[in-house]
Amino acid sequence: MRATLMHGPGDVRVEDVPDSTIQLPTDALVRVTAACICGSDLHPYHSMDPVGGPARMGHELIGVVEDIGPEVATVATGDLVVVPFAVSDNVCQFCREDLHTSCAHQEANFLDGIADEGGQAEAMRVPLADGTLVKLPVAEDSALIPSLLTLADVYGTGHHAAKMADIKAGQSVTVIGDGAVGLLAVLSAKRLGAEQVILMGRHRARTDLGREFGATDVVAERGEEGIAKVRDLTGGHGSHAVLEAVGHLPAYEQAVGVVRPGGVISRVGVPQYEQAPIGFGSLFRHNIRLAGGPAPVRAYIDELMPDILDGSIEPGRVFDTATDLDGVPAGYRDMDARKSLKVLIRP
Amino acid sequence: MRATLMHGPGDVRVEDVPDSTIQLPTDALVRVTAACICGSDLHPYHSMDPVGGPARMGHELIGVVEDIGPEVATVATGDLVVVPFAVSDNVCQFCREDLHTSCAHQEANFLDGIADEGGQAEAMRVPLADGTLVKLPVAEDSALIPSLLTLADVYGTGHHAAKMADIKAGQSVTVIGDGAVGLLAVLSAKRLGAEQVILMGRHRARTDLGREFGATDVVAERGEEGIAKVRDLTGGHGSHAVLEAVGHLPAYEQAVGVVRPGGVISRVGVPQYEQAPIGFGSLFRHNIRLAGGPAPVRAYIDELMPDILDGSIEPGRVFDTATDLDGVPAGYRDMDARKSLKVLIRP
Repeated sequence: MRATLMHGPGDVRVEDVPDSTIQLPTDALVRVTAACICGSDLHPYHSMDPVGGPARMGHELIGVVEDIGPEVATVATGDLVVVPFAVSDNVCQFCREDLHTSCAHQEANFLDGIADEGGQAEAMRVPLADGTLVKLPVAEDSALIPSLLTLADVYGTGHHAAKMADIKAGQSVTVIGDGAVGLLAVLSAKRLGAEQVILMGRHRARTDLGREFGATDVVAERGEEGIAKVRDLTGGHGSHAVLEAVGHLPAYEQAVGVVRPGGVISRVGVPQYEQAPIGFGSLFRHNIRLAGGPAPVRAYIDELMPDILDGSIEPGRVFDTATDLDGVPAGYRDMDARKSLKVLIRP
Repeated sequence: MRATLMHGPGDVRVEDVPDSTIQLPTDALVRVTAACICGSDLHPYHSMDPVGGPARMGHELIGVVEDIGPEVATVATGDLVVVPFAVSDNVCQFCREDLHTSCAHQEANFLDGIADEGGQAEAMRVPLADGTLVKLPVAEDSALIPSLLTLADVYGTGHHAAKMADIKAGQSVTVIGDGAVGLLAVLSAKRLGAEQVILMGRHRARTDLGREFGATDVVAERGEEGIAKVRDLTGGHGSHAVLEAVGHLPAYEQAVGVVRPGGVISRVGVPQYEQAPIGFGSLFRHNIRLAGGPAPVRAYIDELMPDILDGSIEPGRVFDTATDLDGVPAGYRDMDARKSLKVLIRP
């Protein structure tokens, strides 16, 4: 079968690989019908260490179950399913607390961590199928597929940012980052009742979509200038919640600059730093809280899917480009060059 | 009048100073009947820069109102009052959200920040008297005074640590630090329903009091050894909430080591660092949250006082030493040497 491999920075190829097959009795084999490239895939695209060999890519997918192991009970051959970016058993103490990304099962893993598997491919073996997979009540050619695909990561991640910020009706929210997650954090903040949603981003086509998703204000400036603009928009005090959807240190520092006393910075951009300011002068003096992490998207699908099925929200609008597998390397280039916001793959 | 001044590291003196007087129409003049030395007073005791002259000390006090400015309405001459460690107007948007330590009033301040005033003295001018002072329904020689004095800082601060950690009944809580705030964080965690309260501290007399306040386990080890012990006590996963009542970086790192996935580190020890690890390997991977800051003790007094008045809790047991003003320099020495847990001053 054909699959996407990253050989090093900037070096993405689609190659023939051994067919994925069932290996454990709890596995399902999924024929991929829709996948995509994630903003987080661009981190290794910039800095991957080629030592250790190429990496299989892709952690967001929808597909048809082709085969199941003998212990799989909740999905059957022929089911159309969405695959969250983290595998979980859905029954351990952490999953029961809706923290599927910390599932205690020994096979729990991020899809990116499963050897010789990836979603940007013709097929994928998914471990812990009963806990992980969610059936979709549509056909594989439904017009809703792009929006349903966002349940695998970016919409669930935007929702996680908003949920961990404990947004209350009437509050001010600032979203940092106009990538797919940032835009869906805007949609999520609006959905959870935010009154003011300030989107910090510089790409007009993206921030225009952000306005359609609910942003009340857009701030294109960065750093001190951007912080001053947000403070102007919030009566001088900053936003109750800041959703940080980038992951680089300047975005965190910007978050510290625009958060209100007693407010919360909720991070969903994977931090590309370890040390950062959290002392008296940054978080402590005004009781600023810090929250966020990898989104337990599996926990959110039941809540988020109905609004997609009835058409009241369209998170799939973040896809502005579509391709087959052959176009995946160009898709990485275009996302990296910001020519594409998010690339949909139909293998 | 006589007052405590710090001239430099290790150099505390009691000297004659000009009498405190009313300066603004919202001021009250308080004759101090009970004050104390705070663990946070030991930070300048170690590292104060003598340039700029001596600093007046003391931010926890009870006293009798001797005089009021013409705009003061809620307290009168002769009232016995407790003075929270931060001055606030109690009516601004932040005070109404119970965040008095971020009061937006231009005169809002920590008591430590008011020039030429301090609580370790015969008298103190307190700004914003209507917003700040709370009347006490006892006489100045009541046996409850030590416990009521803890409402000015250390009990309110321990309660803040527990409250910001959003402790739920049945949870596991680890408290780092066996000073007065740590011990009262133990008491507070227990009061808010924690089932397991692990106290990390090495001073037997203090940890014994911690057990009386509700600690179910004591871990004397520090660093990796202490972390391993806490993990053993919590089924391998760590505590839902970690209350950090020290303020030094190793205590924060210990907190990261003992917190459960999805859990919260609540800091009330004033951070003696600015940069610290918060990236993928520390907080982000398992959605660890960070909370805390200067406690808005004014917000908590109404809730916390009844249990003191009816004798059901005795936070004043953290005072193991009492002195008059002349004994204050020795009190600093004894607290620094850990001969005293907390020193009560009766001027």
